[in-house]
Amino acid sequence: MVLDSAGLWLVIILVGVGVGVLGAWLDVLVKWLGDLREGRCTYGFFYNQVACCSGLDPGEICNEWQTWSEYFHVTSIFGQSLLQATIYMTLSVAFAGSSAVLVIIYAPYAFHTGIPEIKAILSGYVLDQFLGAWVLLIKAVGLALAVASGLSLGKEGPLVHVACCWAFLLSRPFRQYRQNEARKRKLLAAAAAAGVSVAFGSPLGGVLFGLEELDAFSNDSDVMWRGFVTSVIAAVSLQYIDPFGTSKLVLFQVSESGTTWRGFELIPWMFLSVIGGLLGSLLIKLNAAAAVYRRHSQLHNFPIVEVVGFTAITAATSYLLVFLRVQSSELVANLFQECDPTKPDYHGLCNPTAIWANVFLLVLTALVKIAFTAWTFGMMVPAGIFLPTIAIGACLGRAVGLVTQGLYRAYPTAWIFSSCPPDPTVRCISPGFYAVIGASAMLGGVTRMTISLVVIMFELTGALSHVLPLMISVMVSKWVADAFGKDGIYTVWIAMRQYPWLPTRDFRDKGQTAAHVMKPVSNLFVIHDDGHGCSVKELNEFISRHSFGGFPVLHGEQLLGMVMRDKLRACLVGLIADDPSMEQRCTFLPPSRTGQGDSGMVNLSNLLEEAVLQLRKDVPLELVVSMFQKMNVRHILFSQEGKLVGMVTKTDIVWLLTAESSHAGALAERHY
Amino acid sequence: MVLDSAGLWLVIILVGVGVGVLGAWLDVLVKWLGDLREGRCTYGFFYNQVACCSGLDPGEICNEWQTWSEYFHVTSIFGQSLLQATIYMTLSVAFAGSSAVLVIIYAPYAFHTGIPEIKAILSGYVLDQFLGAWVLLIKAVGLALAVASGLSLGKEGPLVHVACCWAFLLSRPFRQYRQNEARKRKLLAAAAAAGVSVAFGSPLGGVLFGLEELDAFSNDSDVMWRGFVTSVIAAVSLQYIDPFGTSKLVLFQVSESGTTWRGFELIPWMFLSVIGGLLGSLLIKLNAAAAVYRRHSQLHNFPIVEVVGFTAITAATSYLLVFLRVQSSELVANLFQECDPTKPDYHGLCNPTAIWANVFLLVLTALVKIAFTAWTFGMMVPAGIFLPTIAIGACLGRAVGLVTQGLYRAYPTAWIFSSCPPDPTVRCISPGFYAVIGASAMLGGVTRMTISLVVIMFELTGALSHVLPLMISVMVSKWVADAFGKDGIYTVWIAMRQYPWLPTRDFRDKGQTAAHVMKPVSNLFVIHDDGHGCSVKELNEFISRHSFGGFPVLHGEQLLGMVMRDKLRACLVGLIADDPSMEQRCTFLPPSRTGQGDSGMVNLSNLLEEAVLQLRKDVPLELVVSMFQKMNVRHILFSQEGKLVGMVTKTDIVWLLTAESSHAGALAERHY
Repeated sequence: MVLDSAGLWLVIILVGVGVGVLGAWLDVLVKWLGDLREGRCTYGFFYNQVACCSGLDPGEICNEWQTWSEYFHVTSIFGQSLLQATIYMTLSVAFAGSSAVLVIIYAPYAFHTGIPEIKAILSGYVLDQFLGAWVLLIKAVGLALAVASGLSLGKEGPLVHVACCWAFLLSRPFRQYRQNEARKRKLLAAAAAAGVSVAFGSPLGGVLFGLEELDAFSNDSDVMWRGFVTSVIAAVSLQYIDPFGTSKLVLFQVSESGTTWRGFELIPWMFLSVIGGLLGSLLIKLNAAAAVYRRHSQLHNFPIVEVVGFTAITAATSYLLVFLRVQSSELVANLFQECDPTKPDYHGLCNPTAIWANVFLLVLTALVKIAFTAWTFGMMVPAGIFLPTIAIGACLGRAVGLVTQGLYRAYPTAWIFSSCPPDPTVRCISPGFYAVIGASAMLGGVTRMTISLVVIMFELTGALSHVLPLMISVMVSKWVADAFGKDGIYTVWIAMRQYPWLPTRDFRDKGQTAAHVMKPVSNLFVIHDDGHGCSVKELNEFISRHSFGGFPVLHGEQLLGMVMRDKLRACLVGLIADDPSMEQRCTFLPPSRTGQGDSGMVNLSNLLEEAVLQLRKDVPLELVVSMFQKMNVRHILFSQEGKLVGMVTKTDIVWLLTAESSHAGALAERHY
Repeated sequence: MVLDSAGLWLVIILVGVGVGVLGAWLDVLVKWLGDLREGRCTYGFFYNQVACCSGLDPGEICNEWQTWSEYFHVTSIFGQSLLQATIYMTLSVAFAGSSAVLVIIYAPYAFHTGIPEIKAILSGYVLDQFLGAWVLLIKAVGLALAVASGLSLGKEGPLVHVACCWAFLLSRPFRQYRQNEARKRKLLAAAAAAGVSVAFGSPLGGVLFGLEELDAFSNDSDVMWRGFVTSVIAAVSLQYIDPFGTSKLVLFQVSESGTTWRGFELIPWMFLSVIGGLLGSLLIKLNAAAAVYRRHSQLHNFPIVEVVGFTAITAATSYLLVFLRVQSSELVANLFQECDPTKPDYHGLCNPTAIWANVFLLVLTALVKIAFTAWTFGMMVPAGIFLPTIAIGACLGRAVGLVTQGLYRAYPTAWIFSSCPPDPTVRCISPGFYAVIGASAMLGGVTRMTISLVVIMFELTGALSHVLPLMISVMVSKWVADAFGKDGIYTVWIAMRQYPWLPTRDFRDKGQTAAHVMKPVSNLFVIHDDGHGCSVKELNEFISRHSFGGFPVLHGEQLLGMVMRDKLRACLVGLIADDPSMEQRCTFLPPSRTGQGDSGMVNLSNLLEEAVLQLRKDVPLELVVSMFQKMNVRHILFSQEGKLVGMVTKTDIVWLLTAESSHAGALAERHY
């Protein structure tokens, strides 16, 4: 028991440290690859721009970092631009292309974000191929390449997948995890929390993401506690390694100056929240439509061509649109930053005479990015949706902030601005915080998360004093978006791929009973044991004929129990090896009822599942659904006075709950 | 459906607003009563000290607030002290005494924190008296009196209770809440979140408290979403009313200066965390011992005497011990504050020459407060444990911080301090933040909360950049405390009062099956319907003889179903009114089996519960326990081929899980 517990904590600590190290390593790799598109470090090829230029006094110019045109000694302006653009585009396409090649050849499961699959796995779906060593390696490398290629994607979701793969690999040597699916799931839940913790530098947000979005700790304080520990350890490891030398976990520090907000600001924030909800909902619909189109068009057969082509388009557009040229994380950091005369102005964002030009550019950037993201999220590369969504929201938010600021500057005495300080040198409106609001509203619309989103956002930005506006904006944006469909993007993908995952939301029947979804006994494939047993041959034929996971066993009409396919097959293989004639007869009746030396039949009654739920068929449908949601069972039998009358499987309930969804099963690999 | 949903949101919004207003009103009342012990406002009796002195320029002295000695024109120093102390003690005793009288006469349910009861109610226990209008009124007024009396208690837990009472009252006029226990519970969960939100000014912490400690949103994203909305609305209402005129939700603002921390500080913080875990665990044990002693001693019969006497002791000690003289919230705010030459020094805490005197005083204060709190939490007054725990932890933390700072000042060049900035004017060690760490470690030890605790702590203090040390300290303190018993203080009280509440932690059987806890059919009180029915008289006698909540109904050995006592009784009352002879015969067999005009017997088969869970008696005990934990059922029947073999009720499982607890049932009102 003590050893067992020590082993458990050892694995948890190793998972935490490993995830922290993986996250730090990915950060470094992405930064280096991304910078490589613009230039190289003179004294060491493997330094990124920041590392290359570190150790300088403030104000000193960094000569160690050379752009490619400097490196190749191109002097004409035109030649410089051409060379830079060419290298930028070529490397982008090369990165994205190699990422796609790696994914398609070595680990198709490594594409996309991975969150929908992890949600399904944590709710009981067994998909061990999704968590293998190859997937870990390819997803990590592919992700770095994909992010560095400048495609409109983030590393957050895939990092959760990488963390889960790592935990799965670590757990393999331990018998207690290998043999116990429930324990394995709990470890994966903790790893997922650590993944978010590292991805956002947000240990609390990680735990809450596990809690809210992955629904991983449902009703089990132990699992939450382990998630908490893993998450902290991962964050500590990341901070210890400190990949960017900032010794801060907070990714996008918001300046402290705008610590108070005024009541009238709620109006633009509400507007932003509504826009965020609408556009979030639109992004989900566009993305689903793109995925369905891709599946049914010729593109489905040429995924690498698609990736390469789309990367070229993205790279060309990004190079032209100044805000898109840098990596999304840098863009977001700049948009969140308040204007400060002592710091360099990012592309004239703080220029008071260029407000309308900036607003136009920001809105354009947001719209282009929505289109890019809707298409990119679903291509054959590892891709997260978090960062692009934040970037879209931040652009819109900054635009609204600039407009509000512009109005204030134009009419400083209007009654609506009367709560602003009279001193014009004190900033009244902080457009950087509008960008934060915009980002959370957009994220709220796309993911429909609530608490974890708020916590992640203010762990990202450090804007604790503004927790109330943040919460209000998430609330409004979710309200608006819910009006256009209850499902967040991950849930939509789960429905499209038809994973056996049940939404946790309340299901209300309209007076139906279980009979509404129940397969009646006459339609079921059941094993009949009429007292004379069944021959091994009969049983063997039976299970090769039907592919279901388990079969009810009847004696007359009386239900004896349920036998799982895998267990029965394993047993039959043994019996066939003993007696290849397959004439041996087996019975499922308990020994007490067959008598001792009655028949020489093999007694298989111990194969019957112990924990089969039985209900009466007139229970309300609500109860059946909530049973599947909460108890993590695969099937429920319905009996009346001991006689089997029907069965409901998890798949039936998944169909029932996703039937309304317009894309249900649109991308399913196989049909149940 | 739309009306239904509109009604739901209306109630939720009203709950939020109401809780915000209640919280603000309580804040004002407490502050005024507390200040009244020291003096009064010249131009208005109902102003508290802050309100009385508001509107002054900085530096101006407040002449509008008079201490009692000024008011009565006492001039001699000795006379002044005597008068102040007398009024202070008299009012303290009067406040606490009236609080106890109110509670004992009008609403005994209003005593204590209320969190254990709410946990039980949210997990399915029906205790409507606990949520009545009288309880609301008495708990609110009694709480204000109790807090103002200077007893070692806080208002946080009781405020959650008040919020739940308010939600319960609001929900009464709506039929959908009155008739549906599950819906009522969901509303109460949202109200509890709003209560915490207002108590700590921590809207996120409120939701998380609901999630973690109350386990209120288990597996239901809708409930969490409603809790989120209620919590935000309550916080907005509170902020709008702004009872203290600070226009900030953050209760104990930590100054921003200490935004970086050094690795070596982890050593004192670890030490603090271990101490917090140990003392937290000790506080729980002392408190339980005090409660058990009180119950079995003469004090049980004289609760008012106890409250008055103990208040006198507390007031006398507090008046002598300088840190205890102010209200706990003020003490905590001062301890969390960093030293700042521009602000007044709180009782010489920042005096570098008085370090050891301060450390001694702080440790003494903490120890006295532990003893006081252990006794106070359980007296017949409304009392929360959060704030006293924070105060104890803050004292210890500040002491450790002072020691560390003292060491640094004595040996600034020691290698351990090498990471401190060389410039001695820059602060290296921030004792205020040590107090925050101490408070969270202590809270971790007492409540065993994790995430919600961290979120509440940094919403309280705004110390976001220190989230990692906070998480580590909570983690270590919980680890240490768990070694001395897994239960937090609320769980201990639930066990002592024997509420039917199941801990959510994993239960592992040692190979036992359900048969281990099952009451076999021979020991059950069952209704037999052998086909000739039972007379109304027999049934009536049966239910008056047995007080169980429900009875299995058998036909021969075949299980027909379960009938709930309340439903059966209501039906019998109707039948008796129709035919007072009680000769009428009833049957539970379904109409299809009795034939139509067969017997003229009253058919009661529609009384049978639809949703009764049936299992086989050889399922693992783990499964049975997790069924009770997750499905919120009251009983599970065990049957074999349709024959009833036994039953397990929730109470059996509660006994099973709390049997290890040393105080199980020590304060139980009744035995199950």
